[in-house]
Amino acid sequence: MKKVAVLGAGSWGTALSIVLSDNGHDVRLWTHRKEQAELINSTHKNEHYLEIMIPEKIVAFHDMKEALQDVDVVLIVVPTKAIREVCLQLEANLTHQPVIIHATKGIEPGTLKRVSQMIDEEMPSVQYEDIVVLSGPSHAEEVAMRQPTTVTVASLNEEYAKISQDLFFNEVFRVYTSNDVIGIELGGALKNIIALGAGISDGLGYGDNAKAALITRGLAEITRLGTYLGANPLSFLGLPGVGDLIVTCTSVHSRNWRAGNLLGKGKQLEDVLEHMGMVVEGVRTAEAAHQFAVAEQVEMPITSGIYAIIHNQKKPKEIVEELMKRDKREEMDDLASLLKNRYAR
Amino acid sequence: MKKVAVLGAGSWGTALSIVLSDNGHDVRLWTHRKEQAELINSTHKNEHYLEIMIPEKIVAFHDMKEALQDVDVVLIVVPTKAIREVCLQLEANLTHQPVIIHATKGIEPGTLKRVSQMIDEEMPSVQYEDIVVLSGPSHAEEVAMRQPTTVTVASLNEEYAKISQDLFFNEVFRVYTSNDVIGIELGGALKNIIALGAGISDGLGYGDNAKAALITRGLAEITRLGTYLGANPLSFLGLPGVGDLIVTCTSVHSRNWRAGNLLGKGKQLEDVLEHMGMVVEGVRTAEAAHQFAVAEQVEMPITSGIYAIIHNQKKPKEIVEELMKRDKREEMDDLASLLKNRYAR
Repeated sequence: MKKVAVLGAGSWGTALSIVLSDNGHDVRLWTHRKEQAELINSTHKNEHYLEIMIPEKIVAFHDMKEALQDVDVVLIVVPTKAIREVCLQLEANLTHQPVIIHATKGIEPGTLKRVSQMIDEEMPSVQYEDIVVLSGPSHAEEVAMRQPTTVTVASLNEEYAKISQDLFFNEVFRVYTSNDVIGIELGGALKNIIALGAGISDGLGYGDNAKAALITRGLAEITRLGTYLGANPLSFLGLPGVGDLIVTCTSVHSRNWRAGNLLGKGKQLEDVLEHMGMVVEGVRTAEAAHQFAVAEQVEMPITSGIYAIIHNQKKPKEIVEELMKRDKREEMDDLASLLKNRYAR
Repeated sequence: MKKVAVLGAGSWGTALSIVLSDNGHDVRLWTHRKEQAELINSTHKNEHYLEIMIPEKIVAFHDMKEALQDVDVVLIVVPTKAIREVCLQLEANLTHQPVIIHATKGIEPGTLKRVSQMIDEEMPSVQYEDIVVLSGPSHAEEVAMRQPTTVTVASLNEEYAKISQDLFFNEVFRVYTSNDVIGIELGGALKNIIALGAGISDGLGYGDNAKAALITRGLAEITRLGTYLGANPLSFLGLPGVGDLIVTCTSVHSRNWRAGNLLGKGKQLEDVLEHMGMVVEGVRTAEAAHQFAVAEQVEMPITSGIYAIIHNQKKPKEIVEELMKRDKREEMDDLASLLKNRYAR
């Protein structure tokens, strides 16, 4: 039995708290909103986030110092844009060195930095090598309902990866390990670009063939960028890669797919974002990836097409026509050479 | 402009005939049923198969010799179980050596032979190296409606692969080339096992997380078998692999998904097959692959689980529980070593 502080009481943080509690761990769920903590403790529900009842032994905290007392593990599950701020607060309140796991999908616009890099920068007490990331195809609602789910935990610290695997593993939550932190983080973040594209394709009224083409060629494209940034291309073929991509691109519940769908139907970006009333990670990620692709000359035609749609330079239909008309080519030429480079020695 | 005989007037043969006709080729559509040929020529529709009108310049034939006269290309699109018989007939009627392309997905039960191997065995006039296979994520209905679609053509004969690419390529039908005939054929056939599994998962009432896990781990599994049989593992990550898998596993129109769905709901195999009233390729492929896996000691837990469900040894729910409880492991251990072996030299 371990003491775990979960920072962030959104739907994913709450769902992971339930997994940990089911496994017999002592879970302290921290939120920056006092009323939310009080409501969770009095009603054992987390309204607006999850329908399901939360086990009574999960205790919610608003005071971070209190939540962190004697914990063996800290699990960070806040939105990407809150990572730096929460880490500063965490660093200020920690008097010991628990295992740090994060389950946040996203990259920082502008810098293209991954979440573990941001944690490393804001927390001098933590070694980058020791940070663990948890990612995979996982709607929070299904996890909370104890539906079968599989995820991957990755760390350069093999012992910490195994500790994290043991922490979460149970009969409905299967956990694989990996040492490719870069690939696991980038898979979860970059897949949102492709989900946006899948939504655009559906919004244009195209069928399953077009969407499958977009997902498959999109996967090749984010694998290319990921490998350029140091990831193992194989990670994109696993649960946090193709697995997460499938869930995000084929579920109408996906925020990125819904935003893309509205763009495909001819709506302007401002209207789409206003209509959604929340952050659409894929939009920011597409911008960051496109800028990087241009600067570093990495070939990303789908990402660049989505960027052009977002910025109203081109109509979605024109982009699809251009993509279909590109030079005839061999399917696996680029991926094959990436793998060859990796395994040549 | 080329003369092309298309053997097989099902929905896929008809849809590919439309692509070829749109590209200006002279298309002769052969069917073994005389009435069907007459109906197509008089009504320019292929009822029971496709809703859409067929271009008038496509001519249907019942006499194979007539259909084959002076053709540059023969495209074989008959069900797997008819391949040997049609090839015998083709061999008997050919007096010259056209390019042979096939677009049939399946493997022969018992022998585990691929379609190009069967063609090679029945047609002494054809070199195995020259056979071309066309495969990818492609509902025939969408192709017939000129919806954007991408496929791959593979041959050991690079010139013939390029000829086939040029033959089909147009602004709504994008064609990639490959030299991995084995991988392209196996991807199209083995993916039906996983589609069956995805249907079972949905039939059990599980959610997107479980289905994504099944598809992703299933992909790893068929990649392992394919590589064992001589395929390039990368092919499973392309259009005829993961692309086709996505279309088949997420479409309720997929025959294999529907059969799996009924099995997941507790129906017996005989009732399912009777209810479907047609061949379910995945059932036969799962049996063949399971037997091969056992004999050759290739690890295929999902395929073997599906085999056990089909033969009523186990309830679907028990199989899922067993799969979830397997040993803790690293996610990419097996695929990594497969690729390492391939690219090490």
